[in-house]
Formats: sequence, structure tokens, C-alpha cells
Amino acid sequence: MPTDTHRFQIQTQGHNQVLNITESVTHATNRSPITDGVVTIFVIGSTAGISTTEFEPGLADNDLAAAFEGIAPQEGHYVHEQTWHDDNGHSHVRATLLGPSITVPIIDGRLTLGTWQQIVLIDFDTRPRQREIIVQLIGDHST
Amino acid sequence: MPTDTHRFQIQTQGHNQVLNITESVTHATNRSPITDGVVTIFVIGSTAGISTTEFEPGLADNDLAAAFEGIAPQEGHYVHEQTWHDDNGHSHVRATLLGPSITVPIIDGRLTLGTWQQIVLIDFDTRPRQREIIVQLIGDHST
Amino acid sequence: MPTDTHRFQIQTQGHNQVLNITESVTHATNRSPITDGVVTIFVIGSTAGISTTEFEPGLADNDLAAAFEGIAPQEGHYVHEQTWHDDNGHSHVRATLLGPSITVPIIDGRLTLGTWQQIVLIDFDTRPRQREIIVQLIGDHST
Repeated sequence: MPTDTHRFQIQTQGHNQVLNITESVTHATNRSPITDGVVTIFVIGSTAGISTTEFEPGLADNDLAAAFEGIAPQEGHYVHEQTWHDDNGHSHVRATLLGPSITVPIIDGRLTLGTWQQIVLIDFDTRPRQREIIVQLIGDHST
Repeated sequence: MPTDTHRFQIQTQGHNQVLNITESVTHATNRSPITDGVVTIFVIGSTAGISTTEFEPGLADNDLAAAFEGIAPQEGHYVHEQTWHDDNGHSHVRATLLGPSITVPIIDGRLTLGTWQQIVLIDFDTRPRQREIIVQLIGDHST
Repeated sequence: MPTDTHRFQIQTQGHNQVLNITESVTHATNRSPITDGVVTIFVIGSTAGISTTEFEPGLADNDLAAAFEGIAPQEGHYVHEQTWHDDNGHSHVRATLLGPSITVPIIDGRLTLGTWQQIVLIDFDTRPRQREIIVQLIGDHST
């Protein structure tokens, strides 16, 4: 059984909210029989993304949002919004740039994250969402 | 046999063209004996990238290109172009930022994409290309 | 044994330094019994990232740095720097955008990179670091 699937849901507020999901991924990894391999963390949807960062309020609540605002301003002009008469064109652009997943190694049952490196979900949408995250482990059992 | 390799080619026009390759990846997944695991979608080359987006013309043909033009303008100054006497410095920069691959979970034989979340190849080069995409599945057979 | 773990360390200078780590990843792949699968290359830490690029000095030493300077300027205002009284807010923002890992397919014992496509570590920090890179192979032995 080299594959072990976990999933969890998380309530988000959107507007570039950065959420620390490391504990949920660690919890899945700790419960898994897989001790050496990789874990892919994937967010379902096209207005959110996954990466790692040092999770502290300065970066999470301010600096990352400022950079994404420079890349795709909330008040910019988006043809997407004309198509659907909505307001989240910038959310889609930011999510595509960040990407929907990352893959992290597992060695001896532990994620190889640095001390100041947390796994984060960034929700770029313009309204609260219930997000579903897939945590897919692939690899070996300990022998 | 936990690994199953597929590949396909696709003709592109470049200039930030966004191509929906979800059907090709789904086709490979449907034909594969692997029902639970992950699939890595990788583009060979250094002037294209892979991500997910809501594939509709407003985003695909306009809004994503506008954001990449802000990050690395086509008419900007690139030392790369002096080195090779070509015109695709911006293409390389954009491709490195987006990244050459994504990894998507497979559960019960299906990709875990959202309804409005398609897998896309973005070709940043300045001329038509024949692109080769690797679709590498890793995981379990159903029991 | 479908999982094979390698790691190596590399001395970096920071300040958006782009380092070609393809040879180290190829070396690990060549030594591995895994001939078909994927390799995940992951950097530990929150001020560096991994991608692919054409590794030549114009891009590596100039053009990529210019784009990242546009996204998160070194001399910009970062709340992170007020929190810790340091100077690497831009380093964290750039690293989160690029992401800490990529996954590359392996077919017949070889990475599926293009001729002009190298695996690079970009170190965004503001001081020299000893970086640790995890190279995690998952897949099949040849039969």
C-alpha cells in the first residue's frame, strides 16, 4: 500500500488570506504507515494556491498581500469579470501564478520542512469559502 | 508496476498562449491501471510552464497575459537577448517563475480537480513550437 | 524499495543568486536503482526556491533578479522586517512565490529535462547560507 490519501476542509475568508495548514499535513503524515516518500498537498479550486513561508503576521497578513497586489491588483481591469459579472479576476490570476500544489519529502516519518518554513494555503477569492485540501502520501513503509 | 508513463505533443503559438491540456491528462489517467496516487505533468523546455486555471477566454487570452507582461515585459531589456541575439528573454523569466510542472492527486481513478479548475500549458516563447508533455503517474492499482 | 532519498549541501551567496544544481540531481538519479518515476527536489528554508531555467549568465545573474526586484523590491517596506529587525522581507516574499520544490519525471534512468533546461536553486536571502537540498526519488526498478 504505497499510497495513503487524506483530506480535510478549512474555512477561509479570502482576500489574500494566508492560512497555516502545516499541523493538518503533519497530523496526516503521523497517522500514515508511509515513513519515506513524498506528500503532495493540493487545493481544489481555481482561486487559491499552496506554498511554504515563514508563518508570522508581518508576512502572512501584509507583505505577501502587497506583492500579489502589485502582480494582479484587486481594482485592475479583468476581462474575466466582464465574462461572469463577478469581481475575482485578480484572484484567478494570482492562483494560477502561485500554483495549486506543492510536494514535500518525508524521511523517517517526518516532513523535511525547515524550522521557520510552514505549509500555507493562500485564498485569493473575494468571499468566505469552505476549501478542500487533498493530502496524498506516496512511498514506503519502514522495514 | 506503480509507475505509468505517458507523453503527448501539442502544437503551440507562443506569446503567452494558454492551452487547456486537461483532456489529454484525463485520457492518460483513464487508460492507466493506477487508480490512487499522483500524476506529475511536466513540460520539456525553458520557455513554457504548467499550472491550473479556470479555462475561459477572458482569463486565458487576456488577464493572465496582462499579469505576465507586468512581471516581465516583452519589450523590456534582457541580457539574455544580448547573449543569444534573440528576443525571448521575457519568455524565459516568465517560465522560471511559473515552473515546469504540477502534481495532481488521483483518487479512485479520477483527478481531484475542481469543476472550474483546468490543467493548462502556458507557452511564453515568441514563435510556434511543438511541445512535448510528460504525464507520469505513480501509485496503486485498485485492489 | 520504491523510495530512494538523497541530500546534498551547497554554499550560497544569497541576493537572488541562481545556482545550477542539475549535476547533483543527475548524480543522485544515476546512482539510484529507480529507473522510472519522479524526483522531487526540495530546499529546506523559507528564503530560497527551486525551478528550472536556461542556465546562462544573462538570465541567471541579471534578468531573473530584475523580475524579482519588480515583484518584491529589496528596498521596499516589509512588516516582516519590523517584526524581526532584519532585512530579508523581500527574500521571503520571493521564495513563497517561486515555491520550495519541483517534481521532474524519470524515464529509463534519465531526467526528462530539455537540452537548455537546468534545475536551479535561487537563494533570495541577504547573506551567505549553507543550503540543504532533498532529492527524493519515487518509482520503479527496471525489470
